[in-house]
Amino acid sequence: MQRELLNKKEIDELLLSLPRWEVKDNKLQRDFRFQNFVEAFGFMTQVGLIAESLNHHPEWSNVYSEVTIKLTTHDLGGLSTLDIKLAKLINKLVKD
Amino acid sequence: MQRELLNKKEIDELLLSLPRWEVKDNKLQRDFRFQNFVEAFGFMTQVGLIAESLNHHPEWSNVYSEVTIKLTTHDLGGLSTLDIKLAKLINKLVKD
Repeated sequence: MQRELLNKKEIDELLLSLPRWEVKDNKLQRDFRFQNFVEAFGFMTQVGLIAESLNHHPEWSNVYSEVTIKLTTHDLGGLSTLDIKLAKLINKLVKD
Repeated sequence: MQRELLNKKEIDELLLSLPRWEVKDNKLQRDFRFQNFVEAFGFMTQVGLIAESLNHHPEWSNVYSEVTIKLTTHDLGGLSTLDIKLAKLINKLVKD
């Protein structure tokens, strides 16, 4: 999978097409809230399958109905086009 | 599911039967390391099913092959017998 490190200007522009995501500590982050654990873990399973198929995996945490996802490209040392790609695919899994 | 809050002495005694778990910030915590994401998420799926069946869910995070699980009983304000039960069931899923 081709990946290119993004500069700040590129990130700012790309954020406009990624509603509800923000950059914190140089990671692309979004919080998700579901009705219950079954919904939250169902979402995580979908994300897990996508992440594995991209060979690009999130840093993420879950407490009952809440999921926080952080994306970064560790070996490039910042945000890359692959983080944007994964974030867009994740956004397609949820309604808003 | 019956749950009873545990006092410090009870927790110390129970930790003896819970290898690799420790108490941090009043939560029962263990780190797990797998070969890769597929193994880590497979483990998380097993834990998720058990947690849902107990109606007692972990606080947990995952980065690629590493999973950290924290257990506490929020509505009782500390560690309970249910956290011990879940920790023991989780230990059965892994080799060591």
